[in-house]
Amino acid sequence: MTAPDPAVLRERVGAALAAFLAERSDELAAISPDLAPVGQAIRDFVLNGGKRLRPAFAYWGWRGAGGRPEDDARVVTAVAALELVHAGALIHDDVMDSSATRRGEAAVHELFAELHRTQGLTGSPSGYGRATAILLGDLALVWADEMLARSTVPPEAVQRARNAYDAMRTEVMAGQYLDVLAQAQPAVSAERALHVARFKSAKYTVERPLHVGGLLHGCSDALLARYSAYGIPVGEAFQLRDDLLGVYGDPSLTGKPAGDDLREGKKTVLVALALEHGDSSDVDLIASMLGDPLLDADSVERLRAAIDRSGARARVETLIARRLEQGVAALGTGDVEPAAAQVLTDLATQATARHA
Amino acid sequence: MTAPDPAVLRERVGAALAAFLAERSDELAAISPDLAPVGQAIRDFVLNGGKRLRPAFAYWGWRGAGGRPEDDARVVTAVAALELVHAGALIHDDVMDSSATRRGEAAVHELFAELHRTQGLTGSPSGYGRATAILLGDLALVWADEMLARSTVPPEAVQRARNAYDAMRTEVMAGQYLDVLAQAQPAVSAERALHVARFKSAKYTVERPLHVGGLLHGCSDALLARYSAYGIPVGEAFQLRDDLLGVYGDPSLTGKPAGDDLREGKKTVLVALALEHGDSSDVDLIASMLGDPLLDADSVERLRAAIDRSGARARVETLIARRLEQGVAALGTGDVEPAAAQVLTDLATQATARHA
Repeated sequence: MTAPDPAVLRERVGAALAAFLAERSDELAAISPDLAPVGQAIRDFVLNGGKRLRPAFAYWGWRGAGGRPEDDARVVTAVAALELVHAGALIHDDVMDSSATRRGEAAVHELFAELHRTQGLTGSPSGYGRATAILLGDLALVWADEMLARSTVPPEAVQRARNAYDAMRTEVMAGQYLDVLAQAQPAVSAERALHVARFKSAKYTVERPLHVGGLLHGCSDALLARYSAYGIPVGEAFQLRDDLLGVYGDPSLTGKPAGDDLREGKKTVLVALALEHGDSSDVDLIASMLGDPLLDADSVERLRAAIDRSGARARVETLIARRLEQGVAALGTGDVEPAAAQVLTDLATQATARHA
Repeated sequence: MTAPDPAVLRERVGAALAAFLAERSDELAAISPDLAPVGQAIRDFVLNGGKRLRPAFAYWGWRGAGGRPEDDARVVTAVAALELVHAGALIHDDVMDSSATRRGEAAVHELFAELHRTQGLTGSPSGYGRATAILLGDLALVWADEMLARSTVPPEAVQRARNAYDAMRTEVMAGQYLDVLAQAQPAVSAERALHVARFKSAKYTVERPLHVGGLLHGCSDALLARYSAYGIPVGEAFQLRDDLLGVYGDPSLTGKPAGDDLREGKKTVLVALALEHGDSSDVDLIASMLGDPLLDADSVERLRAAIDRSGARARVETLIARRLEQGVAALGTGDVEPAAAQVLTDLATQATARHA
């Protein structure tokens, strides 16, 4: 058989989201015309970007459990709900970090701060932006739920899938909390940074979506364990690649200014390894510059070089390669339906590649 | 029959919440011991306060549709979930308003800012408090959902009730947005202020919880209409009483400093009526003082007197009395089971009384 085109699934997920969000916008408009910017901003945020990774893993989790492509219409709507959870998490994350941009566009709280200015409202534009973005994130979170529950997947299948869906939501919030805590602590070990990455990324992006898909179809505990054995290492590898891109990535590909993670002072596995293994002058240099929001291009370059010299960059590449190998190997036991196993292998390889 | 004791239902709702939140705290502890303050803060917030109004209306909505007290154990758990929606909304509301206190205690974001200070963390305590409170509010919201879905009420009953539950969540967020917008606008008419109150209070606190309860049992559209005819005016009367208490209430009863609503510049129906009907010198006085966070006791007293002189206070009392009468009259048609109708009459009367 020919390999399925991932763009087709992305488009189908996008279409399901567009249809659902159009209904929600109508619901808001019926309450008040003043809510038009709310519906519009959530639609723009969800429909104009995003790799739809979580719906993809959930979809292939369903296929891997034996779901047949000819029966997949309802499942596409159910798994698309994961993209709304993610939208809510990102909108709130940007408020929490005071990030000005997301995917190269103004963050939602910045959009509403700007609306405050152009409409001549009173009070603080940034306070207004923050308050409204909290509400928009809340709406995306509760709508996710509504989309999952209202998908025409049979209620007992949704009920089964909720075990993974609920765990996923608690885990991502918990992982985010641990991340916020780590950012406020003077030093974080690589082990600790990896633990945060496991919850806020690996389980949230890969393992739990696969479980949601498997449970939507109905599957054995053995398959769930298989999905964990694939999903956790592969998801960690994703995050480790993301950490490398945040420091060494090409801004035209990442959509974020070069060195942004360094200016934000993110306590990633990469940075923790550099601090654990660098020589004392490099460690001093990293400790003194990391988290300085005003780092210029030259300082960013010096930081990058110091991290490189410590061997941390090479160590992270090794961690990625090992996790990718381990995760993909877990698929080769026959529990996962072969076409799905192939797609999951490709997804893992692409998303952890150097130029993702 | 003897009238049921509302304290008994409050305790049963509290016990259901305590059991559910103990499990969630264990789930967090299994992820990391660092999450202990998260579980603790949500438990303290939910278990140490709150009138449990929304669960009470949902419970009596179920009884009013014919639910029998001897079958109510599972329903108590399902309706208790509404208290978690409310906890999430309040935790976020306090971040949005930068309110320092809630129910006489430190707001969640203040608690975590304090934790930041006592644990010697780096960065901004208030930024840390805000970020973590956003996550705690998110957790409360998603846990609400989980509690409703996992109550042992049959899945088809939950699915029916979701129609009202989902509408309730969208409406309260929409109402909150309209309120934030109104606070940032130079002037708001009484009509507009009442529209905001309808969504953020009346439908959210009374009408939709009654619908959730009715639908958990299964009920006719006629009963849902009856609940709306009671719930919207009574819920508006609640909010109008709250507006009066925010200006004229005894701080020892309201748990908020005297005049706090005036310092915050809340654009309530009361204030809108004062601006619409006051004489020009009082209107100038109100417009110049309202929203000044540094108002002293003397200025608060002058503002109160000006609002009183405008006739707004008396007008709001009239609006409350008329809505209470209208709402209670809607119960007297035989659709609502008589014992429930009696309790709903009592609830409406108590919660709109002058010294609530």
